[in-house]
Amino acid sequence: MCKNSMSIVLLVLLPVLIMAQTTPYKVIFDITSGDTAAHKTVIRQIRGISQSRPDAQLEVAIYGDALGMAMKDKSIIADAIQELSSNKKASFKACAATMKRLNIDKSQLIPGVDVVPDAIYEIVTKQHEGWGYIKVAH
Amino acid sequence: MCKNSMSIVLLVLLPVLIMAQTTPYKVIFDITSGDTAAHKTVIRQIRGISQSRPDAQLEVAIYGDALGMAMKDKSIIADAIQELSSNKKASFKACAATMKRLNIDKSQLIPGVDVVPDAIYEIVTKQHEGWGYIKVAH
Amino acid sequence: MCKNSMSIVLLVLLPVLIMAQTTPYKVIFDITSGDTAAHKTVIRQIRGISQSRPDAQLEVAIYGDALGMAMKDKSIIADAIQELSSNKKASFKACAATMKRLNIDKSQLIPGVDVVPDAIYEIVTKQHEGWGYIKVAH
Repeated sequence: MCKNSMSIVLLVLLPVLIMAQTTPYKVIFDITSGDTAAHKTVIRQIRGISQSRPDAQLEVAIYGDALGMAMKDKSIIADAIQELSSNKKASFKACAATMKRLNIDKSQLIPGVDVVPDAIYEIVTKQHEGWGYIKVAH
Repeated sequence: MCKNSMSIVLLVLLPVLIMAQTTPYKVIFDITSGDTAAHKTVIRQIRGISQSRPDAQLEVAIYGDALGMAMKDKSIIADAIQELSSNKKASFKACAATMKRLNIDKSQLIPGVDVVPDAIYEIVTKQHEGWGYIKVAH
Repeated sequence: MCKNSMSIVLLVLLPVLIMAQTTPYKVIFDITSGDTAAHKTVIRQIRGISQSRPDAQLEVAIYGDALGMAMKDKSIIADAIQELSSNKKASFKACAATMKRLNIDKSQLIPGVDVVPDAIYEIVTKQHEGWGYIKVAH
């Protein structure tokens, strides 16, 4: 009985023990800035991380005043977004609620940018799943 | 015995399994900006969320340069704060440490704004309880 | 058997129950602003917290445009950083990736500032360990 009890306890605690050991490199970046300097910053950070940590999972939630960085006609980082998303280095999620408010259609977005219904809920979900959170702002 | 062990394991893992399934819509907004554009932004976000997700629990921690948004004489969103708090759509918490530093009395706050001793600890507590965190900033 | 099962369940749930009760005052501050007002803000917050909560564990991750606040020749809060770090009130971590990019050597940093390889991973690790996260930004 005693042996069995110990096995149960170990079995149950195993996920906790594993989680405590290593921190996965998973980050959700939150960007709401219309400042192109902030757009360049997040791209530089993603390039740096994916070079040193190719296992990293990186996602950028784009909403509010930042939507322009995801748009073909406005973004100054369009090529970088296309490259990083096609190489699976990062994923870029534009907020449908922001798009609706600003009257932007999906066809106006850079290829490789996905649409999520609500960027805030996307962020909250990732945090809930244990992803790290970084607000891109100065 | 084997059956009993399985029951124990399931019983113990149940909260973990449930937590993994759904992400509750609970957000603590952190605002320290004196920019009225940021004040309008957080109100717009709260209205949007509470329309699409009436079950959402939303709280705004107001401290530092943002305190003006909670003050009768300075806020440009006083009506919205009163309405959203009385309708239980969101709660607004002003930081007592900031109030003390700026020599602001509770009587100067918009009705519906609560006071917490320390906005940073309020935020940290919500994060610890599994709430999502959104910094309102550009 | 029944008594043993209950003991196992309690034993396993104990850490969860303890965690639910109290929120430790542990905060990782994320600062990327070159604005000296933001540098003064984080020092004021740390002083306030460590006075009211001497048990608090506080850390500041300094990267991007904020690096100047950690440099002997540029910082306007050099004395505060030295004092708070030597008194163990807070620790200050400069990002090696930022230092490399800006060609800054460790010898140029204020005594008491530590170097971490990657400030974003430092932040993500602290979040994963249950620390609260505060972005210092307006």
